[in-house]
Parts: sequence; structure tokens; C-alpha cells
Amino acid sequence: MSAADPLKNIRVVLCETAHPGNIGAAARALKTMGIAELRLVRPKRFPDPQAQWLASGATDILQRARVCADLDEALEGTAFAVACSAREREIAVERVTAREAARRAVRIARTQPVALVFGNETFGLTTAEVNQCRLLATIPADPKYPSLNLAAAVQVFCYELRMAARASTAPRPRRRSLAAHEQVESFYAHLEQTMVERGFLNPEHPKKLMPRLRRLFARAQLETEEVNILRGVLRALGAPDRVRVRGRSKGKTPSIRS
Amino acid sequence: MSAADPLKNIRVVLCETAHPGNIGAAARALKTMGIAELRLVRPKRFPDPQAQWLASGATDILQRARVCADLDEALEGTAFAVACSAREREIAVERVTAREAARRAVRIARTQPVALVFGNETFGLTTAEVNQCRLLATIPADPKYPSLNLAAAVQVFCYELRMAARASTAPRPRRRSLAAHEQVESFYAHLEQTMVERGFLNPEHPKKLMPRLRRLFARAQLETEEVNILRGVLRALGAPDRVRVRGRSKGKTPSIRS
Repeated sequence: MSAADPLKNIRVVLCETAHPGNIGAAARALKTMGIAELRLVRPKRFPDPQAQWLASGATDILQRARVCADLDEALEGTAFAVACSAREREIAVERVTAREAARRAVRIARTQPVALVFGNETFGLTTAEVNQCRLLATIPADPKYPSLNLAAAVQVFCYELRMAARASTAPRPRRRSLAAHEQVESFYAHLEQTMVERGFLNPEHPKKLMPRLRRLFARAQLETEEVNILRGVLRALGAPDRVRVRGRSKGKTPSIRS
Repeated sequence: MSAADPLKNIRVVLCETAHPGNIGAAARALKTMGIAELRLVRPKRFPDPQAQWLASGATDILQRARVCADLDEALEGTAFAVACSAREREIAVERVTAREAARRAVRIARTQPVALVFGNETFGLTTAEVNQCRLLATIPADPKYPSLNLAAAVQVFCYELRMAARASTAPRPRRRSLAAHEQVESFYAHLEQTMVERGFLNPEHPKKLMPRLRRLFARAQLETEEVNILRGVLRALGAPDRVRVRGRSKGKTPSIRS
């Protein structure tokens, strides 16, 4: 099923959306491109008649949309998340165009769930939110006025996903089982906690250490087994993990128990 | 001027638009993609406060927008016009995707004016209007719900125009300073020696552990600074490096001294 249609393995996450009309228009954008799953992190007003109205024929997407308390919950179970942002910034995550992000997302979505994450209309995504994603993607807009409406940006990204999905009846890459968001985050937490305990990282002056390490491992796109190996290495080096996994523990990964 | 920026030679034509909000949102879509010229054929309500509001920072596009009596007037002076439509139909004009249409439009716009033509929200373009154009272009939407909002369709087309325009002057990827072979090998040796010492890796039965870690870090394409960070982490975890660098020591990386 998911191999046949990678778009069924893609969810769109809208963070702290201020205008319900944008949620509705985004739902319509998803549906026109064959994407069905929408998650909303702390929307200002939802449900709302204006969202219904602007969704037009896509109210089913709104009805099934899940409201989440935070980005971790919205990304649960995904193997790959793309932060969609207009803003240039100093960031740990690799930065690519919307088109390139769509190519990579579709490749992974043939086997595992993928998320596209959009920020608030005015403030965009926070740096912390972007750092939870594996890739930062930008629509190459006019630098003089790069301010796309939120739903318009969602439309462009979903369009690129659909274009990528239909382009790639091309060679199939080796199937990799990427680690879930929460597994990778637990590894980062284990690593960070260890470095703080050993005095390698001063939590008062963290500098760029964790962002640098995140960027490194984000490029590698860790597999589940690799996360287990890395945590095994940490434990072998005398770093017990006291990290609690956020969200439900599925009990699949012994190494993430505290 | 036009050769330098083909987008300056492109105009968007909206025919018989019913909702002024769509005119405003379309103006914003144009401006974000660096397109400035908008012509309106018999708009139902224009000017209108709702158009102003949804144009956001693109009200200058609205102020300069020219209202035309018919499509002939709107296309005056153009050398090439693309009819943008979701509807399949029996038509004399060649039919291509939005992406292909954008490629051709931009090629021509380097020397001559080009128009993209959009129809009414409900009825689209008439067959007579399509026949006034040289090309019929469609966004490959989901056949189950292909109904893009007008401004969303304008956004996708203008985005494709901008992508086509910049294709010739592709962006330069960020220059990365990759670690030298011997630096990476020294890191692997440091890691392996540590794991053997801690009993995590049995040198008699090494299994696939080091090959797995090598594959992981090879995918990441380590930078010099990252190798230094990783070796710093190992040392912080109490793993002194007794690793001799193979080959010439360039003395640039203090961390690879034994």
C-alpha cells in the first residue's frame, strides 16, 4: 500500500497556526495533491467555521486532523521530518530547496512515515522545532518579498511531493529502516546528558556542540539498529542512560528504557 | 533587462474572477515569486478591500493591475500565452504539465512578453479563451479531487516559473570542509580500540560492528571539525587515544596525537 503510494505515508504538521482559514485552505491543498493526514500543534482556533469554509471539498481532512500538544507528539512514529521555512538562519540541520526535500521525503515515504512541518504565520518555526527535523526546506522565493501565505506554501510543498511521487517509478534505492523520531531524540538526550555529566558540555554555555552533533547524525539518517549500536557504545563507555522516552514506549527498543 | 530576468517579461491574467480575495491572494503569490504584472479581465469586484487585505505586502501589484475588457486586450503585445486549467477537454491546443509550460514560457520570456491565463473559480476558461493561447497547462492534481483554489494554482504556476528561471543559474551548495581520509581512519581506530578495551567488541569475533559504524559515518561525510568533536566525546568518556595516525601527520589535528 505505502510502497504503491508514498503520499499515503506523508503527514503535514501545522504548528501554532493563528488563522483557522489557513488550516482549511491547507487541508484543501493537501487533498488536491492526494495527501490525507494533517496534524495540528496547538492551533489557536480549531475547529472553526472559517476552516470548514476554506477547506471547500476537503472537510474530511479536517475531521480526521489530530490536534497535538507539542511537536514530539505530532512527529511520533515518523522516520523523517522536513522543516518548511522561509527564514534563513544559523541552524544545525541541512538546508535544501522544497524540490530536493520532496524527492528525499518521497523516497523514504515508500516504506516509512514522513512529516512536513510548518510554523506559525508570523513567527515561523522556532530553532528548537527546526532542530527536531532532519532537513530544512525552503521555497526559493523572491528575497525582496519572500512571504508566502501559509496555505500557499503548503500547496507548493504538497505539489512538489506529488510531482516527486509520480516522477519516481525510477530505480529503487536499498530499503533502509530509519529510526523513529523518538528513538533518535532519546539518543541525543542520552549523549547530551553524558557529556554534561563528564564536564565536556557546560549546560550554562552549551555553544554549538549539540547542534553540530545533531547535524552530523541528521545527515547520516540513522537506522534503528544504528541508534541501538550508538547507545550501546555510550553504555560501554560507562554512560548509563537515564533518559525517559517521551510519548508512548512501544517496548521495541530495549536500549531506550531508563 | 528582460534577458537578465525573464520573470520581468511575464504577466498573469485572471479572467472573470468572482472573489476579490482570490485576486489579492494571487497578487501576493506573484510578488513572492518575483512577478509584477497582473491583468484582470472583467473582474466581478475590483478594487475591493478584501483584495487589499489578502494581498498583504503585495498591494503595489494590485495598484498597478490593469483591468481589461476582454482576453485580447489582456494578451496584447505577448508572444506566447499559456492557458492554465484543471479541466480535461477536447481542445486544439497542445497540452502539457505546469512544469513543462513554465520551462517553455521562461525560454521565450528571455526575449519577449509571455502571459499565463487563469479562468473563473467555478467555470474555468472557455474553449474560445483556451484557443487564444498557444499551450494548455495543467497541474497534475489528484483526479479524485483536482480542485485547487485559484490563488493556490497561481502560486504553483508562478513558483514553477521562478524555478525554471533560476534553473540556469543553479544555487551553489554550501562548501563543506570534509575530513581527510587519515583523520577519519584515526577516529575509527580510536573508536574500535575503545570498544575492545571496554569489552563491547570482541576482536576475536568482531561481527559487523565496525563495518556498521563505518557505514553510518561514511554516509554523514564527516567534516574535520566533526571528527575533532567525536574524538573529544570519546576522550570525555574516558577513552584516551593511543592511536597512531597512519601516513603523514600534518599536525593540524591535535586530537590525533597519541
